Amino acid sequence: MAEPITISVDAMGGDTGPEIVVPGAAIALVRRPNLHFLFYGDQARIAPLVEANPQLKLVSRIVHTDVTVRMDDKPSQALRQGRYKSSMWKAIEAVKAGEAAACVSAGNTGALMVMSKFCLKTISGIERPVIAAIWPTLRGESIVLDVGASIGADARQLVDSAVLGAAMAASIFGLERPTVGLLNVGVEEIKGVEEVREAGRILKDLDLTLMDYRGFVEGDDLGKGSVDVVVTEGFAGNIALKTAEGTARQIGQYLRQAMSRTFLSRLGYWLARDAFARLKEKLDPRKVNGGVFLGLNGIVIKSHGGTDAEGFAAAIELGCSMVVNDLMAKIARGLSHPLHSGRVEVLDKARTGAS
Amino acid sequence: MAEPITISVDAMGGDTGPEIVVPGAAIALVRRPNLHFLFYGDQARIAPLVEANPQLKLVSRIVHTDVTVRMDDKPSQALRQGRYKSSMWKAIEAVKAGEAAACVSAGNTGALMVMSKFCLKTISGIERPVIAAIWPTLRGESIVLDVGASIGADARQLVDSAVLGAAMAASIFGLERPTVGLLNVGVEEIKGVEEVREAGRILKDLDLTLMDYRGFVEGDDLGKGSVDVVVTEGFAGNIALKTAEGTARQIGQYLRQAMSRTFLSRLGYWLARDAFARLKEKLDPRKVNGGVFLGLNGIVIKSHGGTDAEGFAAAIELGCSMVVNDLMAKIARGLSHPLHSGRVEVLDKARTGAS
Repeated sequence: MAEPITISVDAMGGDTGPEIVVPGAAIALVRRPNLHFLFYGDQARIAPLVEANPQLKLVSRIVHTDVTVRMDDKPSQALRQGRYKSSMWKAIEAVKAGEAAACVSAGNTGALMVMSKFCLKTISGIERPVIAAIWPTLRGESIVLDVGASIGADARQLVDSAVLGAAMAASIFGLERPTVGLLNVGVEEIKGVEEVREAGRILKDLDLTLMDYRGFVEGDDLGKGSVDVVVTEGFAGNIALKTAEGTARQIGQYLRQAMSRTFLSRLGYWLARDAFARLKEKLDPRKVNGGVFLGLNGIVIKSHGGTDAEGFAAAIELGCSMVVNDLMAKIARGLSHPLHSGRVEVLDKARTGAS
Repeated sequence: MAEPITISVDAMGGDTGPEIVVPGAAIALVRRPNLHFLFYGDQARIAPLVEANPQLKLVSRIVHTDVTVRMDDKPSQALRQGRYKSSMWKAIEAVKAGEAAACVSAGNTGALMVMSKFCLKTISGIERPVIAAIWPTLRGESIVLDVGASIGADARQLVDSAVLGAAMAASIFGLERPTVGLLNVGVEEIKGVEEVREAGRILKDLDLTLMDYRGFVEGDDLGKGSVDVVVTEGFAGNIALKTAEGTARQIGQYLRQAMSRTFLSRLGYWLARDAFARLKEKLDPRKVNGGVFLGLNGIVIKSHGGTDAEGFAAAIELGCSMVVNDLMAKIARGLSHPLHSGRVEVLDKARTGAS
């Protein structure tokens, strides 16, 4: 049997808390029998749920915490009130202490980010963490980052994101040399923002073994899956992510309206119901549930707050994949390049060389 | 019969040129019999197409030009080679000269923007033009701007865009006081970019009669149609637009794959074919074909380069609506507010008041 992998879980995170989180862990355990769990939160709510599943009980430990970070707490407030003692903090701290290989929380994104930064710190040479999303595409899945950890990015930060994203793609898609693109705008007159152009020049010059840099991509390349990793800063990335989610919901509603309109369309819908089920599955946000915080000294996965047990299980399994495929070592290798060791000089050289 | 409205047309613009543009004008004329046309371009190609349609011939004049701006010309190159003499330039110039009420071109976006700026100039007090797109939503249609005329925007430019977008919404949707939102990101920790927050404070303080300012919206509000006008800067706006287009195509392809898989799904598809036709029509990009350049001393519509005659007709009709509903006067009224007359002071006051 494979080595056991321990996941620390913020059992109180998300709109529901333990009643989704614990069954989610149970689902993940069926598919990944080498998982172990550390649940942090309200013992009285967690214990009965764990007890109800003998398999889960065997591989779980519950650590009681009194403090819960609320979904609407401001990050600063959450940090002040929840540091050192909340279920969220404790789950992150387990990664720092080496007790868990990855942490999963469906809690407040801002609070989880601030606490993760505070507790785990960023990897040496990385200025700030980013959030990576797994994006369903016509070719399978891509990674898009940053989808909202911070606003704006200079060329160096974009290059860092490219390295982090490529390491993640290598880990979870099993790719030798993932293709990477920088998100840009294609309107002739403007040809993109200066930081993006500079990051492109640097990535081209560095020609890292970790990735196959393919140049600029545009918004419509996201759905096509033109590259494995799409790099952008958090403002545009967050807007792209939410625009795509909104468009998918919009078309789903158009489709439902169209199919329920006449007797024939309802009959057609019934006959083709397997096809619609397949489509629904394709668009199921639970299957790609989980934003990954990259750039920290440890793996932290953010599940959607409103997910169900199946979705939470997907977030746990995502963390598990990254542990099995040694994401952290891949990132370290990606950064052990001239870019990292002599980063400023390399960047300066790239700048001079290009102009 | 309604007053005649003359549209100046760059007959050489787009992937095809006159063979799409002239039939497009003919379609628009059927629906709007008070249209007149000024076609600029290659007489030898345009004339036979116009001759073929007696109705169209009656209301059209052809002005021969030798120079055509190519779809892949750089804007600066297009301006150098095409100024004063290309079909694109001449069509814009007709608006300046008062010979036409609006100009429509399916040509190169960057070139059309640069020439429009150079020829028509921006409205006094407006720093730079923006491109507005009509966005299909669950509630109907919204206006989103800027979708790529320029990158980045300070608070003042965002406020200008809000005024321009509200005037356009009033014109084409016939709304008294369109609702307006500023596109932002909702991640707790960051709460949006400073320029957007400042623009929000100013719009709230000004409380313009032209619009009902509703605060921040996120990417998923675009498809919902939460507000009539969504204001953002060109980088994020262009990425949002292309991401939505890409997502719609992606889901369309998923749907085709799902429906063609089994006999039952194909039968279901056949029975529900009216419903699918309705869906397709809903998603038909031709129906909302046309970006509008706002902030210039005149109306310029950019049609998609790859559109067909039906799509080009939609772009012409869009221009026509804006003329009929007096877009330019609405913009002037929107800007004749304290914001415009004493703009710097108002902004300073708003800034001070808010901090």
